[in-house]
Amino acid sequence: MNLPFRLTTLADVRARAGSFPVFDEAAAAAARARQDVLTKPPGSLGRLEEIAAFMAGWRRSARPAIERAQALVFAGNHGVCAQGVNAFPQAVTAQMVANFEAGGAAINQLCRANGATLAVHALDLDRPTRDFTAAAAMTEAECLEALNRGAAAVDPAADILVLGEMGIGNSTVAAALSLALFGGEADDWVGRGAGADDAALARKRAAVAAGVARHRDAAALDVLAALGGREQAAICGAVLAARAEGVPVLLDGFICTASAAPLHAVDPGLLDHCLVGHVSAEPGHRRLLDALGKRPLLDLDMRLGEGTGAALALGVVRAALACHDGMSTFAEAGISAG
Amino acid sequence: MNLPFRLTTLADVRARAGSFPVFDEAAAAAARARQDVLTKPPGSLGRLEEIAAFMAGWRRSARPAIERAQALVFAGNHGVCAQGVNAFPQAVTAQMVANFEAGGAAINQLCRANGATLAVHALDLDRPTRDFTAAAAMTEAECLEALNRGAAAVDPAADILVLGEMGIGNSTVAAALSLALFGGEADDWVGRGAGADDAALARKRAAVAAGVARHRDAAALDVLAALGGREQAAICGAVLAARAEGVPVLLDGFICTASAAPLHAVDPGLLDHCLVGHVSAEPGHRRLLDALGKRPLLDLDMRLGEGTGAALALGVVRAALACHDGMSTFAEAGISAG
Repeated sequence: MNLPFRLTTLADVRARAGSFPVFDEAAAAAARARQDVLTKPPGSLGRLEEIAAFMAGWRRSARPAIERAQALVFAGNHGVCAQGVNAFPQAVTAQMVANFEAGGAAINQLCRANGATLAVHALDLDRPTRDFTAAAAMTEAECLEALNRGAAAVDPAADILVLGEMGIGNSTVAAALSLALFGGEADDWVGRGAGADDAALARKRAAVAAGVARHRDAAALDVLAALGGREQAAICGAVLAARAEGVPVLLDGFICTASAAPLHAVDPGLLDHCLVGHVSAEPGHRRLLDALGKRPLLDLDMRLGEGTGAALALGVVRAALACHDGMSTFAEAGISAG
Repeated sequence: MNLPFRLTTLADVRARAGSFPVFDEAAAAAARARQDVLTKPPGSLGRLEEIAAFMAGWRRSARPAIERAQALVFAGNHGVCAQGVNAFPQAVTAQMVANFEAGGAAINQLCRANGATLAVHALDLDRPTRDFTAAAAMTEAECLEALNRGAAAVDPAADILVLGEMGIGNSTVAAALSLALFGGEADDWVGRGAGADDAALARKRAAVAAGVARHRDAAALDVLAALGGREQAAICGAVLAARAEGVPVLLDGFICTASAAPLHAVDPGLLDHCLVGHVSAEPGHRRLLDALGKRPLLDLDMRLGEGTGAALALGVVRAALACHDGMSTFAEAGISAG
């Protein structure tokens, strides 16, 4: 077994990128060739066929299987809540973590429905990051610690990883990361999150604009430390560790995708092993997916986070592989055309 | 138990429509009230919340469950194949039915993945309908027989019904039904189906235009007899029998949806208990869904038929009910806001 993935500096990510296993084009080509002789018009399973080839390439197998699906939810608290940006009190982060641990949240039901093992990592909830309108949210050391905790949480024996987050205030964080990385106006990235009213929405826009202006000189992973939270850093770590182990990833909605976006700024290829489970009703998500060149699997007006859109999409990935592995070929079925 | 649903004339549908059980608004309201106190921001599960209310209303229960999911695939052969409209020989219909029975098709894998019991009904494959460019495809008696066979196939104890079809040439039939019912040009409704080349596509357009012109005086279910096939009539019968038993339906792609469309022409409310599992890559489907006022659950570039898009969407419906039934309320979880 490899040594666990661990970074010693944030700048290390760029250096490590070259050492990651690459997509196995031969396995993907073998999967596509199989799809072309299964009992259906070629191409007629659409994105299910693409998913089969994607999984084949990253799992380095022409007939990949999902025996072990891991779901990780990272939770953190955010100093920017001092700006009055959110609809729920910050104590709800810890209460929802308890709900995850008790099995009562949406993500628990969706992981059970689609056969994923869920683990929740609460990251220093009693020690929120600093308010990014006034200072860097995290020091490099704090950011690295959270990133490495995310990386260490990944099961290297998993066949696929579902990622999610929980953190009161973190749609403000996601909007700030997106604005810093992809530009535009605060308005382009700020939505109501869990239910901000008009006054909270205005404070949210102002906080995002102020934070991004204050940290305008930060780039790539420095943006993560300046504006992100611990759960955002942990998601980056989990994405990197999964890549190092050849584990494909299902990202969730706006916040989860924005959490991984600093890696895209380092090298767009760092997200090549990631599918996006759904597009959120949170308005910034579609813009963010366009910027990342990612097409979501589902579009069901969801905006809950927790990894719920990714866990739901796991069912689609499982279905794609069930067709890929279980269908007969034209020759096996004795069918005239193919 | 009720007498099995059975029609004695096609005109009987309109008369029977008034006797069907109606959507239980009280059960749906109770489901919505439950959604509003589950541990998530209200509305944040998007369409999963709507599905829960939909299932509650049709199953007449505030906490509906899917214990029994039935999938029915109807197969038929079509005289219009004489016009050279299809990419595969007509013998493939029976060969694919054998493949369904042997468990080798996509629909078998998707039913297994999402817990549906599949039954396949081959409808007189050795006796194709008449070429609708030259005559009515079916007599009223033939249409009624197929419709009643579809109705009789429905398990009244099912909690949800997945519908699909197989029949070489039946995307031509679906285009003709759509043009006759909703107007426009043949071009608006004709696509490549299982893979028609340019020459076959031109013949397909001509056949659809000629068939609809020949039968321009037919309305509603007479359109079904004039232009449809046995599997289209069976789908209408299954939709009606499901409605009579209070079983919600998942329709599949272009052909399955077009099969049910004559019922919409009788009374748009006859499809109120139907969700549409996905939008097909076959170009007429989006237009047809707009005409019917239906929003599909999935959009994955699939165009296979067999019920595959509906069976895949069953996973989403199951997930919606898993959240609805399994989540804790704010009060149960001791969470501050809600």
